[in-house]
Amino acid sequence: MTDHYDSIESLLQAIKTNQLSVSDAKAELNQYDELGFAKIDLHRSKRQGFPEVIFGEGKTEKHLIKIIHSLLLHEETVLITRINSEKANTIITKYPQLEYHATANIVCTRLNYIHKTERQTAIICAGTSDLPVAEEAAVTAEVMGISVKRFYDVGVSGIHRLFAHIEDIRACNVSVVVAGMEGALSSVVAGLVDHPVYAVPTSIGYGANLDGVTTLLSMVNSCAPGTSVLNIDNGFGGGYNAAMIINMLEHHSKME
Amino acid sequence: MTDHYDSIESLLQAIKTNQLSVSDAKAELNQYDELGFAKIDLHRSKRQGFPEVIFGEGKTEKHLIKIIHSLLLHEETVLITRINSEKANTIITKYPQLEYHATANIVCTRLNYIHKTERQTAIICAGTSDLPVAEEAAVTAEVMGISVKRFYDVGVSGIHRLFAHIEDIRACNVSVVVAGMEGALSSVVAGLVDHPVYAVPTSIGYGANLDGVTTLLSMVNSCAPGTSVLNIDNGFGGGYNAAMIINMLEHHSKME
Amino acid sequence: MTDHYDSIESLLQAIKTNQLSVSDAKAELNQYDELGFAKIDLHRSKRQGFPEVIFGEGKTEKHLIKIIHSLLLHEETVLITRINSEKANTIITKYPQLEYHATANIVCTRLNYIHKTERQTAIICAGTSDLPVAEEAAVTAEVMGISVKRFYDVGVSGIHRLFAHIEDIRACNVSVVVAGMEGALSSVVAGLVDHPVYAVPTSIGYGANLDGVTTLLSMVNSCAPGTSVLNIDNGFGGGYNAAMIINMLEHHSKME
Amino acid sequence: MTDHYDSIESLLQAIKTNQLSVSDAKAELNQYDELGFAKIDLHRSKRQGFPEVIFGEGKTEKHLIKIIHSLLLHEETVLITRINSEKANTIITKYPQLEYHATANIVCTRLNYIHKTERQTAIICAGTSDLPVAEEAAVTAEVMGISVKRFYDVGVSGIHRLFAHIEDIRACNVSVVVAGMEGALSSVVAGLVDHPVYAVPTSIGYGANLDGVTTLLSMVNSCAPGTSVLNIDNGFGGGYNAAMIINMLEHHSKME
Amino acid sequence: MTDHYDSIESLLQAIKTNQLSVSDAKAELNQYDELGFAKIDLHRSKRQGFPEVIFGEGKTEKHLIKIIHSLLLHEETVLITRINSEKANTIITKYPQLEYHATANIVCTRLNYIHKTERQTAIICAGTSDLPVAEEAAVTAEVMGISVKRFYDVGVSGIHRLFAHIEDIRACNVSVVVAGMEGALSSVVAGLVDHPVYAVPTSIGYGANLDGVTTLLSMVNSCAPGTSVLNIDNGFGGGYNAAMIINMLEHHSKME
Amino acid sequence: MTDHYDSIESLLQAIKTNQLSVSDAKAELNQYDELGFAKIDLHRSKRQGFPEVIFGEGKTEKHLIKIIHSLLLHEETVLITRINSEKANTIITKYPQLEYHATANIVCTRLNYIHKTERQTAIICAGTSDLPVAEEAAVTAEVMGISVKRFYDVGVSGIHRLFAHIEDIRACNVSVVVAGMEGALSSVVAGLVDHPVYAVPTSIGYGANLDGVTTLLSMVNSCAPGTSVLNIDNGFGGGYNAAMIINMLEHHSKME
Amino acid sequence: MTDHYDSIESLLQAIKTNQLSVSDAKAELNQYDELGFAKIDLHRSKRQGFPEVIFGEGKTEKHLIKIIHSLLLHEETVLITRINSEKANTIITKYPQLEYHATANIVCTRLNYIHKTERQTAIICAGTSDLPVAEEAAVTAEVMGISVKRFYDVGVSGIHRLFAHIEDIRACNVSVVVAGMEGALSSVVAGLVDHPVYAVPTSIGYGANLDGVTTLLSMVNSCAPGTSVLNIDNGFGGGYNAAMIINMLEHHSKME
Amino acid sequence: MTDHYDSIESLLQAIKTNQLSVSDAKAELNQYDELGFAKIDLHRSKRQGFPEVIFGEGKTEKHLIKIIHSLLLHEETVLITRINSEKANTIITKYPQLEYHATANIVCTRLNYIHKTERQTAIICAGTSDLPVAEEAAVTAEVMGISVKRFYDVGVSGIHRLFAHIEDIRACNVSVVVAGMEGALSSVVAGLVDHPVYAVPTSIGYGANLDGVTTLLSMVNSCAPGTSVLNIDNGFGGGYNAAMIINMLEHHSKME
Repeated sequence: MTDHYDSIESLLQAIKTNQLSVSDAKAELNQYDELGFAKIDLHRSKRQGFPEVIFGEGKTEKHLIKIIHSLLLHEETVLITRINSEKANTIITKYPQLEYHATANIVCTRLNYIHKTERQTAIICAGTSDLPVAEEAAVTAEVMGISVKRFYDVGVSGIHRLFAHIEDIRACNVSVVVAGMEGALSSVVAGLVDHPVYAVPTSIGYGANLDGVTTLLSMVNSCAPGTSVLNIDNGFGGGYNAAMIINMLEHHSKME
Repeated sequence: MTDHYDSIESLLQAIKTNQLSVSDAKAELNQYDELGFAKIDLHRSKRQGFPEVIFGEGKTEKHLIKIIHSLLLHEETVLITRINSEKANTIITKYPQLEYHATANIVCTRLNYIHKTERQTAIICAGTSDLPVAEEAAVTAEVMGISVKRFYDVGVSGIHRLFAHIEDIRACNVSVVVAGMEGALSSVVAGLVDHPVYAVPTSIGYGANLDGVTTLLSMVNSCAPGTSVLNIDNGFGGGYNAAMIINMLEHHSKME
Repeated sequence: MTDHYDSIESLLQAIKTNQLSVSDAKAELNQYDELGFAKIDLHRSKRQGFPEVIFGEGKTEKHLIKIIHSLLLHEETVLITRINSEKANTIITKYPQLEYHATANIVCTRLNYIHKTERQTAIICAGTSDLPVAEEAAVTAEVMGISVKRFYDVGVSGIHRLFAHIEDIRACNVSVVVAGMEGALSSVVAGLVDHPVYAVPTSIGYGANLDGVTTLLSMVNSCAPGTSVLNIDNGFGGGYNAAMIINMLEHHSKME
Repeated sequence: MTDHYDSIESLLQAIKTNQLSVSDAKAELNQYDELGFAKIDLHRSKRQGFPEVIFGEGKTEKHLIKIIHSLLLHEETVLITRINSEKANTIITKYPQLEYHATANIVCTRLNYIHKTERQTAIICAGTSDLPVAEEAAVTAEVMGISVKRFYDVGVSGIHRLFAHIEDIRACNVSVVVAGMEGALSSVVAGLVDHPVYAVPTSIGYGANLDGVTTLLSMVNSCAPGTSVLNIDNGFGGGYNAAMIINMLEHHSKME
Repeated sequence: MTDHYDSIESLLQAIKTNQLSVSDAKAELNQYDELGFAKIDLHRSKRQGFPEVIFGEGKTEKHLIKIIHSLLLHEETVLITRINSEKANTIITKYPQLEYHATANIVCTRLNYIHKTERQTAIICAGTSDLPVAEEAAVTAEVMGISVKRFYDVGVSGIHRLFAHIEDIRACNVSVVVAGMEGALSSVVAGLVDHPVYAVPTSIGYGANLDGVTTLLSMVNSCAPGTSVLNIDNGFGGGYNAAMIINMLEHHSKME
Repeated sequence: MTDHYDSIESLLQAIKTNQLSVSDAKAELNQYDELGFAKIDLHRSKRQGFPEVIFGEGKTEKHLIKIIHSLLLHEETVLITRINSEKANTIITKYPQLEYHATANIVCTRLNYIHKTERQTAIICAGTSDLPVAEEAAVTAEVMGISVKRFYDVGVSGIHRLFAHIEDIRACNVSVVVAGMEGALSSVVAGLVDHPVYAVPTSIGYGANLDGVTTLLSMVNSCAPGTSVLNIDNGFGGGYNAAMIINMLEHHSKME
Repeated sequence: MTDHYDSIESLLQAIKTNQLSVSDAKAELNQYDELGFAKIDLHRSKRQGFPEVIFGEGKTEKHLIKIIHSLLLHEETVLITRINSEKANTIITKYPQLEYHATANIVCTRLNYIHKTERQTAIICAGTSDLPVAEEAAVTAEVMGISVKRFYDVGVSGIHRLFAHIEDIRACNVSVVVAGMEGALSSVVAGLVDHPVYAVPTSIGYGANLDGVTTLLSMVNSCAPGTSVLNIDNGFGGGYNAAMIINMLEHHSKME
Repeated sequence: MTDHYDSIESLLQAIKTNQLSVSDAKAELNQYDELGFAKIDLHRSKRQGFPEVIFGEGKTEKHLIKIIHSLLLHEETVLITRINSEKANTIITKYPQLEYHATANIVCTRLNYIHKTERQTAIICAGTSDLPVAEEAAVTAEVMGISVKRFYDVGVSGIHRLFAHIEDIRACNVSVVVAGMEGALSSVVAGLVDHPVYAVPTSIGYGANLDGVTTLLSMVNSCAPGTSVLNIDNGFGGGYNAAMIINMLEHHSKME
């Protein structure tokens, strides 16, 4: 629960040895900025390697600005997902250090401020209608410092499109597969690569697609080992997982 | 409704011109053998090109024997699906002109009595556990006079197995794709061939497979044109449709 | 995967014998027009007998025009489904060789430019509210060169309407049955004809219809052999399958 | 709540005028036989025209005997549904005035003790596997004094079987349609008759049948007016409703 | 299939004896008015006791007017359900013999032109939000000539409201129970009356109501005998069934 | 059913002893104000400790005013839930003794008129998007006279936020946990406190949340004893239950 | 997290002031008995007022004995649910201080060792088949020291059975309503009492009951305030909640 | 598709330069051992870093032995999941280099033959009933060469059990969280660690658990970033993914 102290034991020890007052110890358990309507989790970047991401949907412009203000004050990277163009434009006018990615519906710290890894994640999607979710994944990974290679419109029903790119996909370290009608795509990719595949079902489709539930279950059901599944339309989750893996690889390779 | 007469009009005309008595006309509408517990549809072979198929599940040995007796009396081909080995063995002992296909759970007229077409249907399945459904499709097609080519264990997660056989599959005129965990297979096949693909989901699997419902919906949801879907575990339906198409091709090619 | 060459073997042989350069061989695997936002599958007409069909929903006017441009450049037949009247009108103003079918929500190559088969498919629907899906099926078949006979408003609850037309339906080679509230219709038709029946459930209805899922499952569940099922509202799929069968019949009858 | 007294008002009046003591009035609200493990509703035959029916499933032999004893003591007709052969045989050995209907899984007062109506209900079923539910409906109606006409194995996929009997079905006053795989049957029947149709879905089937849920929803969804639906496998409910209607017709026709 | 002739046999006999020409016989099977976009079933009033009811949703004003014209021409009673106020007002301006029931969303023949039965149906509903469905049931019954007694806002959670009216409900011959959140109501009513209860679930509610599916299943699941269930929001179906029963009672009571 | 009289027996006794006339006794069963479109249950405050709560959704301004009028006339506390700002503003302009809680979508008797308990209920919620449901719970409890302590934005994925407040939560006597995406929260809370936990799932979320059904089932499924579950978005129910418990505690503690 | 210490603060303070060693503080966080295959939560009786309850299903006899041994060693009350008769009999032979409740499938500390409250909970169930779940609730409450009053077989379809007991039910402080086919029962009870109602759906039933899911959703959906819902067949949960409320009432009434 | 050759291009080049014969090139596409009933994918260990894993359920002893024989012949590691004790015992008697893990239902190469990584994966499970799935995950990871640290019985409803171990869990590089009734556990863990969390729902539970579907959806729905989800009961998938990540870390850390 504590970051400063490596374990509960060391925190308790610190109190005992008077290195830490009781009120400071208690403060350690209150590591967020209380904005009244929300509590910004400021220790998350220490605890989990990346600051709290803001889910923009349903938040007012005023609330978003307060949150951004608090994050920038603590010099955190900003990542707001599911934000519409209207709110986005107001925000980037106010904060020139942020930029708006329209297809991805994301406002974030300008990507050219961010140092990128050499290792790459592949973002693969089946149809042009899955683009917003794929881009949410891609920009999320980029804002977290990961190089991204996009493979869009490479569906299963014309499988040669996928094969034309398979070597490039294999050269990446993680794949995020985004698909609505073609749940099969994650199975096919996972059968052809030897790295982790994150499958992101989308709600794009009609009829038996059941707003993405069929694709979700079908991806979960796939028997290609090395695949795991995110929530419907959760491009952010796909990008976040991919970034976490690649950051770990970078970190561990430097460790030795 | 009538087969002898091409249309209701011609039947009515026949009554008027005294070529057909009223009681005979009425009989035309009663074209089945009343066994008390069931009515055997004896005109189906005329009406739909193949005699009534018997769904064996839940029927007693005694009932099955009465039905077979009625069918053989009218020189019809026999096809009983979903029959267990115990009942099957009693029946083939009694009727040496029939044989039992254990994996397919089928009792039928001996296949070597049946003339086969030159045109072929492919029966493709993803895993060894889908074999019973695939064999139900295969034997159904064979008893209907169709040559069958089996492609078993060619799943999507090791897609090169499928590609090794793709030319042979393309040489067939119809494909029946049977799959439980790998609903993706029908999409992939349909994207690689230019003939009709019948997708048969199976209930084999676990968890998110939901007894085949996920696979069914996922196959229905596929965007590869040329695919259509049968009920879960309905191997018979797959074989029947394939046979109907190939019989039509044979028939029309002889017509010209 | 290759069309020019009948099999992988022949392609490999061609490289070996210097008939095909390595880069050409590789090109064979890249048979699409890269538009940036999409990849047009130009070899599909060779591989599957008909060029890539464009699903119009969610595509911008600008994207649609680029795709049409690419297809016309390669002298392909154009078929865009699920397109609204506004986009449709802009397009047909720009491309006079195309026309707009309002009920079907389709823009396609003018039908009077297309040679039609003598063999026919029946398009049968139960209620006036199912018309858009039925017309999507009908126009799809027509743009693929098939003669279509429409039987609309012939539902099960007034079954004599259907019987009045049954001889005409039997004279066709395939039936596409489109129904929302009356899933029963495909069972009844399949029991009366001896050709393939494609059942297309629609989302029209209310309450227990569950946006077409009940009708879908009920059609899948039907025990009339010779039926197979498409996705909810997938009129295109029904028309495409019907066209594929009839084109095969035409092709095979000419072959002998 | 009271039967003796036509209304609450008359009961209250009876207390006031000393025709009814307070304790008797209270007793009127306790019209059941308390067996400890169950309360037999002895006034139901007065309140609803037929005594309480016993759902046999899960009840012990000992409990069933106590219930029968209580019912016979009050000279009520006995009807126990969902009872297996073992318990049934013990009971009919003990009570010779009862008989066991094996297919229907019913133990009841001997049917030849019961006077039957002239008006009839039709019990229609699609397949031999639906027989137990159809018989539960038929015997329920008979034990309630209704004449029953059975039309079994008249499914939709061979619709001429149904038409051969349609005049006889029309001659009945109610139809109970029992079907598992052929939910369509109730729609077709309701479109051909002018009396109430009770649709009883059964759990017989496989795959997309979803243990009868598909058939239930599909029957509910039917647009043929005059149909209403019972629970899956609820043959009893179908028979009970049919009997209630016919008893009302008999009663009202005698009233005038 | 024929109404003029009591059975197929009598029709066939009529042809034979020259009382009926072949073309007239054929015409008997085509008993509808072909409007191009729809076929009006003009013999339904003979076949099923009431003319075809028009489901207004999704039909254009122009189409509705053509249908009304055809019905009035044949002197049929008009009943159009699910019609919005705008279309309704245009229609009643044009046809003064029709009237608009706003809560019920119905346009129909003026009710004061219609002779009503003495026997009554009860229409019972739990909450004010279920009123439109309850009124659809009530007006449907009234236009079919049935006297209706309304019991609105008598839910289960304040059950004394229901009890205050129970004697009046018992005096009716059928009950239609309309409920969205209170599926329990049909059970409670069915346990207190001795006539048929038609349960109409509504989609009114939120959360676990699942747009009426929970209420539908819960009503189907009820163990009160004498209940049967209609589709969600199908007030028309409830009124139609009630009317059919009461018309039968009237008819049979006059017969004797 | 009666409140004045402690039991049916005492009411019957009262009639007998002429303390109560028959018509008055009958009136006791009719304890509501008949407004035509609705029946206001005026005895509920006696029967259940709080007057009838009005569900505002779908009710017209005119109807709401009539209901408020009737409630105020009988000096009842007013609580209207699910009311939009437009109707709310009209009402509070007209009735200055009422006030509008915008986030909670509630119009009620001014809270500062209401005496509050010392014992408190905790209202806990996971995300800012769950606020409207949490506030519906909070204001409901307050209008029922309960002191409320709010713990908002204390989700599971940053569990230290919850722990920072756990002692304050334990000091309350009931917890209402409101959560959409974090169904886990009710389990975690219930494992840390020794008082009743009411779990209110919300429909806030996307994809696999299935409009709150996943959260509902997941909360029901939780194995932390002491939890029970309300309908999706039913903040009112959570507040009502909490208030009922605390009122019982107050009442019983005063009793001894 | 700690029980000895009222809050984290007091525990931290205790370390600081040397009243508590670091290792003891850490031990406070490890309050369970590690049995290898399981961890018995020994502080739960302090933390939540009752020791850890053992879910017997799937646990071996050997494991159960180890757990009982650990509990008895710490003088805790024993409550094992979902245990079959075979394992139960071995255990009560070994531990004479325990007893077996066969209908409830419970082994627990002998009830006559346990002091009972004066306040009572009502356990209400609709059908004899719901008895095992009702008894699980009843015995759970009793072993937790609560007096229980059972009202069995008081279903909605014969609602006078319920009314005959309503005064006794009202005299209790909590009601637990257990019902499978009659989800309505909890609504009806909640509308008649002014105390908390815990609704426990059971999986008993068939067809549209969907193994209790329909009843669960229907109970959740009920609009009678004061109801909250437990998992399907979770009699334990019902009894536990009831006991918690009554223990709170006892405790608070003694406090003042 | 080829492993020997880094890309299709290099394979084609090899043919051209006569380094590879056409038949050898074709053989490269046929990299499996054809056993008749199955095709063993022998190149998977090259293609994906681990040989084909055998799903034991439904395979006969004879088939399993043939597969093991083929794998051992090629010196592959053996891993057979979902195998019962009977078949397992026959196999380990025959192949002493294999061993049987009873709780995990796994037969595999003896673990002490396998070199383990220093980096560890945590396998965390909530209840003793989830042990088989947790062990399937653990043994899978171990047979793939990964060190495993087990944290069993650390559920959410007694969350201090989890906190007592949190530092040890954080010291691992991946967590696999296995839970049936406590879907919350994966959220809580993911909120406390900064490495990937694989959530494996199990089908253990009852009622609203819906055979694991509720837990699956609830885990997918969780908003803790860094979580991804496997199929219900897919312990193998959890172990495989964890192993893949840790192998990548080992591999990359050695690379630099």
